Amino acid sequence: MRSTIEALQWDENVLYILDQRKLPASEVWIRAKNTETVALAIESLAVRGAPVIGIAAAYGVALAGMARNANADRVRGAIARLAKTRPTGFNLFYALKEMEKVLARGGDNMPQRLVKKAIEIHRKDARACLSMAKHGFEVLGEDERVLTYCNTGALATGGIGTALGVIKYGHAHGRIAEVFACETRPVGQGARLTVWECAQSKLPVTLLCDNMVSALMQAGRVTRVFVGADRIARNGDTSNKIGTSMVATIAHAHKIPFHVVAPRTTFDLSLRSGRDIPIEQRNPAEILSAMPGLDRVRGVKVWNPAFDVTPMKYITSFVTDAGVIRPPFEF
Amino acid sequence: MRSTIEALQWDENVLYILDQRKLPASEVWIRAKNTETVALAIESLAVRGAPVIGIAAAYGVALAGMARNANADRVRGAIARLAKTRPTGFNLFYALKEMEKVLARGGDNMPQRLVKKAIEIHRKDARACLSMAKHGFEVLGEDERVLTYCNTGALATGGIGTALGVIKYGHAHGRIAEVFACETRPVGQGARLTVWECAQSKLPVTLLCDNMVSALMQAGRVTRVFVGADRIARNGDTSNKIGTSMVATIAHAHKIPFHVVAPRTTFDLSLRSGRDIPIEQRNPAEILSAMPGLDRVRGVKVWNPAFDVTPMKYITSFVTDAGVIRPPFEF
Repeated sequence: MRSTIEALQWDENVLYILDQRKLPASEVWIRAKNTETVALAIESLAVRGAPVIGIAAAYGVALAGMARNANADRVRGAIARLAKTRPTGFNLFYALKEMEKVLARGGDNMPQRLVKKAIEIHRKDARACLSMAKHGFEVLGEDERVLTYCNTGALATGGIGTALGVIKYGHAHGRIAEVFACETRPVGQGARLTVWECAQSKLPVTLLCDNMVSALMQAGRVTRVFVGADRIARNGDTSNKIGTSMVATIAHAHKIPFHVVAPRTTFDLSLRSGRDIPIEQRNPAEILSAMPGLDRVRGVKVWNPAFDVTPMKYITSFVTDAGVIRPPFEF
Repeated sequence: MRSTIEALQWDENVLYILDQRKLPASEVWIRAKNTETVALAIESLAVRGAPVIGIAAAYGVALAGMARNANADRVRGAIARLAKTRPTGFNLFYALKEMEKVLARGGDNMPQRLVKKAIEIHRKDARACLSMAKHGFEVLGEDERVLTYCNTGALATGGIGTALGVIKYGHAHGRIAEVFACETRPVGQGARLTVWECAQSKLPVTLLCDNMVSALMQAGRVTRVFVGADRIARNGDTSNKIGTSMVATIAHAHKIPFHVVAPRTTFDLSLRSGRDIPIEQRNPAEILSAMPGLDRVRGVKVWNPAFDVTPMKYITSFVTDAGVIRPPFEF
């Protein structure tokens, strides 16, 4: 099972980045020839999703290695620049560490070594997606009506996806009857990206606003939830797109199984619990811009965290590329 | 304490309706001279909020009585037309029943009797708001950081509001330190109307997306929730704007008190539980229009209920114009 949707393409030493801010209205590619273009694409959410951010950053380091005036210090500067783009997702730091190791090891043809490593990280994530999809299949019953949140498909990874990968694979193998995609305010990754990806893959998808999850579950229409993750602490607490802990709390109240699908590169074993995960605050304009005139109302404050932390007690299992992990969680 | 914001004004036999779809960008008034204009304003959400819908409908009946060719049958036709505008809120049916009684009673000067009754319903609701605000004050502690949902202020009622009325009154009397307003997708009554009303009343308001409620409560930033209601069944189950049961479920998980503020005209004693409350489904375009290009993605279904039902087990108390009602609820 191969995805025809790709978030990134590496071709003749240029990183092509599908500008996800423009989807589904139009497919525009950013032609990144240097680290800064990649960093800005990550910061502006042109490319988003924890696994693919790691891959993009790896290519961003490779681009620094390919530069005409490249040297080890400049490549280290590129790594430092990319590390500052987004604080929450762990795959970014994992990928940068891998690139750093190549640099530290030294040797001839460093630019080629860096490019090779970035491509390897990319391919490894694609394989991890397929493994997760196959392991996720184990938890599926018949005629599942699954709810997912944000976008965790081909656009968010190097392969078919994490949570959405499990759903696509499960649908291809006859286990998924219906997919519910939450809008995912304020950036709308669910409405813009998951709906588009489902449509491309012919999955029967229904869009709802985030605040409708409770009514949907109360109506008995959801049998299972699959979400991705940006960083998982040692005790199983999981940071993911803002709103994930809302879905988890409601699923728990309705006794609906809630699965987190993530590759091993998302697990941060240096953190004891979710309290230690840094949460990115984003620009109020992301919220205010939705309503004409709202930015002119005086004295209004805005709270805009990009992620929240789902307590491990609400997580039924983790579907990883190494298998399904059930509680008690202690990694 | 009088509100300077008004959703409706009756002047020389014309009903002026503040077009809430245009707020906060601009203040535009609809000049309604007949029943149909009022009915369309209700259906299109130019005027919304269960109590004020009832008041607008009463004036809509009065306008039918004032028409040049008016007779009892035509007024009954107007009542039937208005009863079809929105199915969930109960105050609408309460108000229409009151108007029907005036008609059934008969007598001279029927047009004037109908106008008088509509004005009476309007004033009674303003008084009920003030009573709710005073009763709601009983449940407030010091330095409350309250979260509210949708819009339940002057724009939704004939007075200072229901839930937002309690908050304004509590703020004026030194008990409210902070107000959190949820965006309320897809129509944005929280972002557009509550934020604007709070700004007008100098309340310290912070806007957040609906999916951020869980993170906010987890962070310990909310001490109490106040919401309005569209219809309350005999066992206490409460229908209100879609997303209310999401807030209630999460508040319950965090042991945060959750209060429903509603006048007695919202209680429908003919219904045994929330299962019997009709829930309005609205146009998919309300959701699809938020994202450019989304309406061109093929095969996408949309689920767009306008209300959900909060189970009575999540409700700490009802603040009504007749006092605070605590569980067990059986009306």
